[in-house]
Amino acid sequence: MTDKSPADNFPVGYEPDKVWTWEQGNGGAFANINRPIAGPTHDKVLPVGKHPLQLYSLGTPNGVKVTIMLEELLAAGHEGAEYDAWLIKIGDGNQFGSGFVEVNPNSKIPALSDHAPKGGGEPIRVFESASILVYLAEKFGAFLPTELRARTEAMNWLFWQMGSAPFLGGGFGHFYAYAPIKIKYAIDRYAMEVKRQLDVLDRHLADHQFLAGSEYSIADMAIWPWYGNLAQGKAYGDAGDFLDVGSYKHLQRWTEEVFARPGVKRGRMVNRVSGEPSEQLHERHDASDFDTKTQDKIAKA
Amino acid sequence: MTDKSPADNFPVGYEPDKVWTWEQGNGGAFANINRPIAGPTHDKVLPVGKHPLQLYSLGTPNGVKVTIMLEELLAAGHEGAEYDAWLIKIGDGNQFGSGFVEVNPNSKIPALSDHAPKGGGEPIRVFESASILVYLAEKFGAFLPTELRARTEAMNWLFWQMGSAPFLGGGFGHFYAYAPIKIKYAIDRYAMEVKRQLDVLDRHLADHQFLAGSEYSIADMAIWPWYGNLAQGKAYGDAGDFLDVGSYKHLQRWTEEVFARPGVKRGRMVNRVSGEPSEQLHERHDASDFDTKTQDKIAKA
Repeated sequence: MTDKSPADNFPVGYEPDKVWTWEQGNGGAFANINRPIAGPTHDKVLPVGKHPLQLYSLGTPNGVKVTIMLEELLAAGHEGAEYDAWLIKIGDGNQFGSGFVEVNPNSKIPALSDHAPKGGGEPIRVFESASILVYLAEKFGAFLPTELRARTEAMNWLFWQMGSAPFLGGGFGHFYAYAPIKIKYAIDRYAMEVKRQLDVLDRHLADHQFLAGSEYSIADMAIWPWYGNLAQGKAYGDAGDFLDVGSYKHLQRWTEEVFARPGVKRGRMVNRVSGEPSEQLHERHDASDFDTKTQDKIAKA
Repeated sequence: MTDKSPADNFPVGYEPDKVWTWEQGNGGAFANINRPIAGPTHDKVLPVGKHPLQLYSLGTPNGVKVTIMLEELLAAGHEGAEYDAWLIKIGDGNQFGSGFVEVNPNSKIPALSDHAPKGGGEPIRVFESASILVYLAEKFGAFLPTELRARTEAMNWLFWQMGSAPFLGGGFGHFYAYAPIKIKYAIDRYAMEVKRQLDVLDRHLADHQFLAGSEYSIADMAIWPWYGNLAQGKAYGDAGDFLDVGSYKHLQRWTEEVFARPGVKRGRMVNRVSGEPSEQLHERHDASDFDTKTQDKIAKA
């Protein structure tokens, strides 16, 4: 434990209670959707569209992983990957509706319901973004190498993303951009770890085209929305400058290469509710929904 | 982003630099092993023992996941799961040796090298604790259900663990127990999230024997070392009281049920360097190593 005096704490004299209790309204941005209890807050049946795959999501990095995968599957000719992408407004608490909690008891986006699972039967629920990626990769036999060595490397990096990004999003991003005050200790702690992570990627990508090697895989789709977005300077205000993302040259090369893929460009538009209006497709129920967006864009130009 | 005055920050008047720079020696416990750069710091060849599986690890929750899996495989009769478990002293920087970095470029324990991979050839590297669990489950066809619905649920919870535990260990544990000072905002933030996670598990385990359902799986092996340990009040000093872990009755039931398994008891001893001496087996190279420990224990009693 630590042996400093409470006078050094913040606020001065602070000592944790014996048993923690919930004080509402003190958590910065997103404070209204953070709770110390799980489960539904209200009854709400989820909508179900015409396609086999029903996605309930939002265009955050975790959400975008899955829409990129679905658009890549469709681009590769897997017609069974047609999907409805429904918007879950986390700021409004949609993730605490009873129907959503049935699909994901963790109340986080993305959540997937497969209404045409292999072997038939009731819909299968899939939650956690990387679990959805593995599920879809195995369902369609795509974007996860079958050769053991390459497959293992893809899984290594896929799990690396899941264990690392909480330090980027829940750690660095929160304390740098969203917390109500700036706490130097926390910002330094997470900036150091994120820079280490960027360097891990940069060194690996120096002599590998993609994360798993020569083959583009779900590892790239998982890592790009978090670390590619950061590398492009699009995350957390001016965090790109703060972390000197331009110095990671191999990460920059890979970021651009992945971003050039049409499936990635489409995937990042789905369920997006911020940024340029022409880049937002709030819900996606048909491939032609993108054409409508393109027409909108042309009409506005 | 936030619109409060720098006078509200900690320390008072703090504003982040335009570009972050590394100030060494200010990170609390473990500050000496945290770096903003990746890669090896020194040349060091890893030892290789007589068994097919070479594990380089330490008895932390992430390390214990894998030694539990290996002991469970051996208990189930999978003789090919014989392994050498080598001690990686992270406080001494062993994870920055060149040989270790070749097996895990992320410089974290556990890391596994399979010297007898299916299909033959050079050893295969496996890193990230849950990637190792999946690799071993698929290599031996054990502890990961084959039926799609149960398998998907096991993977959902396995990935849940990987994305959730950084808020427990790197978040709550750090700020509650290891940071040089106590910061109320950070402790409150992470205590709330960890309690939510405990409640997610508790509600699920209310009507499921194990995480994936009726079948004990790698999801249990991944979650138990983190959340079972916390539920038993063995993590972060008096954090069990602070988080009122006794109130999560179903989690407590599951924690005891998993803890009663001989493979779990053996697995948690391997590479352990703290706690009761009788519970520490610093390295494991043969099944009889546990017998020696048992004899030690009897001799001391």
